[in-house]
Amino acid sequence: MTFRITILGSSAAQPSVKRHHAAHALNVHEQFYLVDCGEGTQSRLLEAGINPLKINAVFISHLHGDHVYGLFPLISTLGLMGRKTPLEVFAPRPFDEITEQHFRYFDCGLEFEVQYHPVDTRKHQLLYENKVMEVWSVPLRHRIPTSGYLFREKTPPLNVHKEAIVRYGLSIAQIVAAKRGERILLDDGTELAPEELTYRPYEPRSYAYLSDTLYSAKAAGLVRGVDLLYHEATFAHTDRALARQTGHSTAQQAAKAAIAAEAKRLLIGHFSGRYKDITPLTEEARLLFPQTEAVIEGQAYDIAVKSSIPHATFHP
Amino acid sequence: MTFRITILGSSAAQPSVKRHHAAHALNVHEQFYLVDCGEGTQSRLLEAGINPLKINAVFISHLHGDHVYGLFPLISTLGLMGRKTPLEVFAPRPFDEITEQHFRYFDCGLEFEVQYHPVDTRKHQLLYENKVMEVWSVPLRHRIPTSGYLFREKTPPLNVHKEAIVRYGLSIAQIVAAKRGERILLDDGTELAPEELTYRPYEPRSYAYLSDTLYSAKAAGLVRGVDLLYHEATFAHTDRALARQTGHSTAQQAAKAAIAAEAKRLLIGHFSGRYKDITPLTEEARLLFPQTEAVIEGQAYDIAVKSSIPHATFHP
Repeated sequence: MTFRITILGSSAAQPSVKRHHAAHALNVHEQFYLVDCGEGTQSRLLEAGINPLKINAVFISHLHGDHVYGLFPLISTLGLMGRKTPLEVFAPRPFDEITEQHFRYFDCGLEFEVQYHPVDTRKHQLLYENKVMEVWSVPLRHRIPTSGYLFREKTPPLNVHKEAIVRYGLSIAQIVAAKRGERILLDDGTELAPEELTYRPYEPRSYAYLSDTLYSAKAAGLVRGVDLLYHEATFAHTDRALARQTGHSTAQQAAKAAIAAEAKRLLIGHFSGRYKDITPLTEEARLLFPQTEAVIEGQAYDIAVKSSIPHATFHP
Repeated sequence: MTFRITILGSSAAQPSVKRHHAAHALNVHEQFYLVDCGEGTQSRLLEAGINPLKINAVFISHLHGDHVYGLFPLISTLGLMGRKTPLEVFAPRPFDEITEQHFRYFDCGLEFEVQYHPVDTRKHQLLYENKVMEVWSVPLRHRIPTSGYLFREKTPPLNVHKEAIVRYGLSIAQIVAAKRGERILLDDGTELAPEELTYRPYEPRSYAYLSDTLYSAKAAGLVRGVDLLYHEATFAHTDRALARQTGHSTAQQAAKAAIAAEAKRLLIGHFSGRYKDITPLTEEARLLFPQTEAVIEGQAYDIAVKSSIPHATFHP
């Protein structure tokens, strides 16, 4: 039950030898997603050992080149790799027009569909879900319409304690009913509450991507309780005027967002090329929020399974 | 008097961890040029220690994504770097439309002009020149309109032997006249032929980029005598049917082109991802043309100055 974020790029708009444009790869229960897709993302995926064909969906925060220039090259390569499965792309408008123009000039001979879903950057909405996970948009404050994304595991179905099945000799029908949360009536007339038989296998985990943005208390509120918060920290506090002017955050503001969000951990990234050493940015954030790390490109950050306190008080 | 080709990318359309999309950087007398600009070219430039701001002009062979996807990201970064100097871009049509569409959706806030020059891929024409170099188009045979490029040093102006200046006590006016190739009349009535006073400082060097293309005797003829021929070798001879079908060359055909062009050296590249080891391709080409090398990404290939045989028979 993996929940892993791999950092593919960590630079702001001007890349360096060490830092590439924004892209995160997500692995949630062995289903793969991309958040942002800066230039060279397909190369970073290969370097990280992630098969590009496994990507189910791409979530683009905004239409600045450093967050999206890698998408058409990736799509083109997926075509060469023989992809047949549709690729879902979530991005603000007018990404539909950009896509249309692109395929007008570049015949990629795709055998799969690029399914575009416009993201309303003013709304906090459920965009995508599968059996185990939901993805929500999170309105951000940047120079152009921008959305963050919240990836959240769904509350998993109830499990029945194996010991309870044996002790009470539960039938299949009774197990199914217990999993639905129903009360179970035994042959001897004993009635068992679901709490006595069942438990949640794990607590839902979550990851939020808030980039690019000014500090937003509202966005922090929308991801409250998040396990892993990625927040941009383009600038140091000393350059806060520049941050405000360009619609970006300082490391201190990223920490402030982590506090407001009651996040468990904070990852900062999207560093301006002006900082050769980003240690001061990390230190600046840690003063307010000690559980801060500066992202390292190529590194995978796992959110460990949180074993749920058994829902039932069952003690065999 | 540098004449250096740095290989920034060497893969065919599907890149790998080791091989990136097509791009060559040229340094001719400390003036810099790009030939093709696949995804990630700006990162490769940084890795190679070439300042992107120094690029004067970009020559795009054809409008397949793997040869051009890196150009807008590069242009965008040049904008962030504060470039003011125009960037000249040579590419087949409709690159003008693609550029127009791009800037419609991506406001790069450029303070420099992108000067587009359409390349007629059916013609062998002089496209660009400065004091020391000319660039010519070379029609190629690919699935879409494609042009190769020939970079050729101009014949340098005549130099006057220092010893001759001293021996004959030449005046400034006489030196200038000698450099123009005129006969010089000395005060004592002696007349000196230009051959007696002057020499060419070096022989013009040349580099040709022929990619992507089927074997073309015509293209080889147009670059006859080239010092360094880069020719695509996407496939091995065993896959020649595939080469024909996709409009590409085999390593053997690249060698054949080098022979037809009477090239001094051959570099092969644009390797299909199917070959994990490209040694067999190099060997295949060397059977016909021993002076073959497979390009290595990040490596610089210098064409040494060819000292001219003194034009004059002057012996001090």
